[in-house]
Amino acid sequence: MSICNREVEYISDEVSLTSPHNLTLFDAKEKFKTESGKELGPIEINYETYGRLNSNQDNVILIVHHLTANAHTAGKYQTGDQEVGWWNNLIGPNKAIDTNKYYVICSNVLGSCYGTTGPASINPETGREYGTDFPVITIKDMIKLQKALLDKLGINHLRAVIGGSMGGMQALKWAVEYPDFVDKVIPIGTPGRLKAQSIAYNQIAIEAIKNDPDWQKGDYYGSGRYPKKGMALARKIGMITFRSPESFQNKFGREELERKDFYTLDSQFKINSYLDYQGQKFIERFDANSFLYLTKAMDLFDLGRGYDSFSTALSRIQAKVLLITINSDQLFPPEESLEVVNILQQMGKWAEHYEIDSKLGHDSFLVEFDKFKFPISDFLNK
Amino acid sequence: MSICNREVEYISDEVSLTSPHNLTLFDAKEKFKTESGKELGPIEINYETYGRLNSNQDNVILIVHHLTANAHTAGKYQTGDQEVGWWNNLIGPNKAIDTNKYYVICSNVLGSCYGTTGPASINPETGREYGTDFPVITIKDMIKLQKALLDKLGINHLRAVIGGSMGGMQALKWAVEYPDFVDKVIPIGTPGRLKAQSIAYNQIAIEAIKNDPDWQKGDYYGSGRYPKKGMALARKIGMITFRSPESFQNKFGREELERKDFYTLDSQFKINSYLDYQGQKFIERFDANSFLYLTKAMDLFDLGRGYDSFSTALSRIQAKVLLITINSDQLFPPEESLEVVNILQQMGKWAEHYEIDSKLGHDSFLVEFDKFKFPISDFLNK
Repeated sequence: MSICNREVEYISDEVSLTSPHNLTLFDAKEKFKTESGKELGPIEINYETYGRLNSNQDNVILIVHHLTANAHTAGKYQTGDQEVGWWNNLIGPNKAIDTNKYYVICSNVLGSCYGTTGPASINPETGREYGTDFPVITIKDMIKLQKALLDKLGINHLRAVIGGSMGGMQALKWAVEYPDFVDKVIPIGTPGRLKAQSIAYNQIAIEAIKNDPDWQKGDYYGSGRYPKKGMALARKIGMITFRSPESFQNKFGREELERKDFYTLDSQFKINSYLDYQGQKFIERFDANSFLYLTKAMDLFDLGRGYDSFSTALSRIQAKVLLITINSDQLFPPEESLEVVNILQQMGKWAEHYEIDSKLGHDSFLVEFDKFKFPISDFLNK
Repeated sequence: MSICNREVEYISDEVSLTSPHNLTLFDAKEKFKTESGKELGPIEINYETYGRLNSNQDNVILIVHHLTANAHTAGKYQTGDQEVGWWNNLIGPNKAIDTNKYYVICSNVLGSCYGTTGPASINPETGREYGTDFPVITIKDMIKLQKALLDKLGINHLRAVIGGSMGGMQALKWAVEYPDFVDKVIPIGTPGRLKAQSIAYNQIAIEAIKNDPDWQKGDYYGSGRYPKKGMALARKIGMITFRSPESFQNKFGREELERKDFYTLDSQFKINSYLDYQGQKFIERFDANSFLYLTKAMDLFDLGRGYDSFSTALSRIQAKVLLITINSDQLFPPEESLEVVNILQQMGKWAEHYEIDSKLGHDSFLVEFDKFKFPISDFLNK
């Protein structure tokens, strides 16, 4: 096989060029009601699709995304694009989530800043950005909006809901809230309810932003000031929890930056510079208020809330569940996920557990794609 | 035995009332030279002693303290004091570090803010606080000042050096730098060199402070403004690393604060309130610049620095070493300490390892005193 042929093959394994879609759901007459009882509308929703909806409309897989992601899950917008969708390695023709078989949809979550209504969107009532007038939203609100999108698209059943981290929370919540709508869910690296340490981590990231005077109590839009330092710090806090001690040690150890003066109060190690870089990238691509709202939604995540108990909520699940954990996950350690698997299994429900052996930590599902191919495709074929 | 008698017994098991001592070391003529090559002097040093120096002067144990501690290690200053020294459970007559046998000394480290010269002290050259004109100091500088204190007190040998966390770093450094001066060292919960993740944790705590406009590039003394928010956040970051996920979960879980309004952007869990409390306490008792300097000293901690290799440094050690680790320690996990033990053992040196079984995390050595009594007293008796 010539190199040329291999390249052609490679291209044929990718989804075609994709384009973002936008829809307006709800309106001033029929507003979206949040779990907190507030009303929102109209709501813009940004989404992408890959593959083809079959005539029975029974080949739909919903991808639900993590905190800072968007709906651009696979493919490129233009041939020359450097960037591909963030799960491009898993979604495409003959890939783990096979677009020859499935019609794949991903929408940007409510409260985010990639085309779906969030705190940076214009509040039609004031003509200004919502800022902190945006209602507190929950994981339940996110999936309720996804459900509204599917309704609008005429889709009345899902083969699967798949996602990692905050996406995993949505996948679980889908199984609890719409038990007969979804056949399978694959939550990755997620607990069934946020534990104290995760709430603590969120707290310090939130305070990093709120402590920044440029946050201006959320009213920074149009002020020419943006809480850059706070956002960068929040991202650095996140990065430590997304990766494992071992991955940092292997990659950076105690390697120093090249500097003239060794003894100063400035940071001087390569790990410092790496975190600075991650912080800077984040400032450029995410809205501070969106970060606060989505983090709060995770804090509030507890499958048992609104039900008599955690178990009562889980007892509603009819979907087959594959819970994937990552053994080096510091943010949501496997034992937090196993709580869900164990309860479901005790109830006699179809609940499988697959542990990824990784030295990377929580972010494994966004980096070590090969490790996720088998468990996902195998479970989808069951 | 009457209750009254028991009380008398109890009191007799405590060290007598103690008092802080202060000495001035070095002066304008003979300044202290830091590892960075800067000169400091005079230097005030605050220290306490418990027990009695024997006639051979060979019963001295040096306690070396962790980042935010002080020299008040045991006893009370006045009978009515609520507070006792931070290792009072381990230091006293018939206790693990037995003041009937040993003369125990602890001094506040260089760069701190509890009576030993640090960035909040007056720079004799300017008549104002040093602030960030204070030189960057190292663990080596800390023990060099302790050595100068011992010289001044006429003590030319140590039976042991004992300490946890940053104290453990000093204990190890003592064994490397003054190999024939010390018989035994007991470093607790410490690596032989700070690893990438610890440097990363330090970075976010440092930035929490530096991001606070009230820090004023370290020149906040006398300004009426203190980087309270930054210090509180730095402490909260620390607390997460000092404790284990399990301890937070057992203590707080998802318990909510009593509030009128559930859906707001404010924090609403008991874990949040606990961290707020810890942050507030820290503001009231520690100097922000001291925190930055001592954290930097830890970042720079690498026993191998200044030697051909890490092993070369360890090969200098003559003292018997007992390295105590805490199995739930997230800040300095046991494997980081075992690197030191393994190398020493391969060299045929006397190096023991004792692992504390704890659910608490790094802070175990400041809370679960009973667990430390046996390994410390047993090793001291060897």
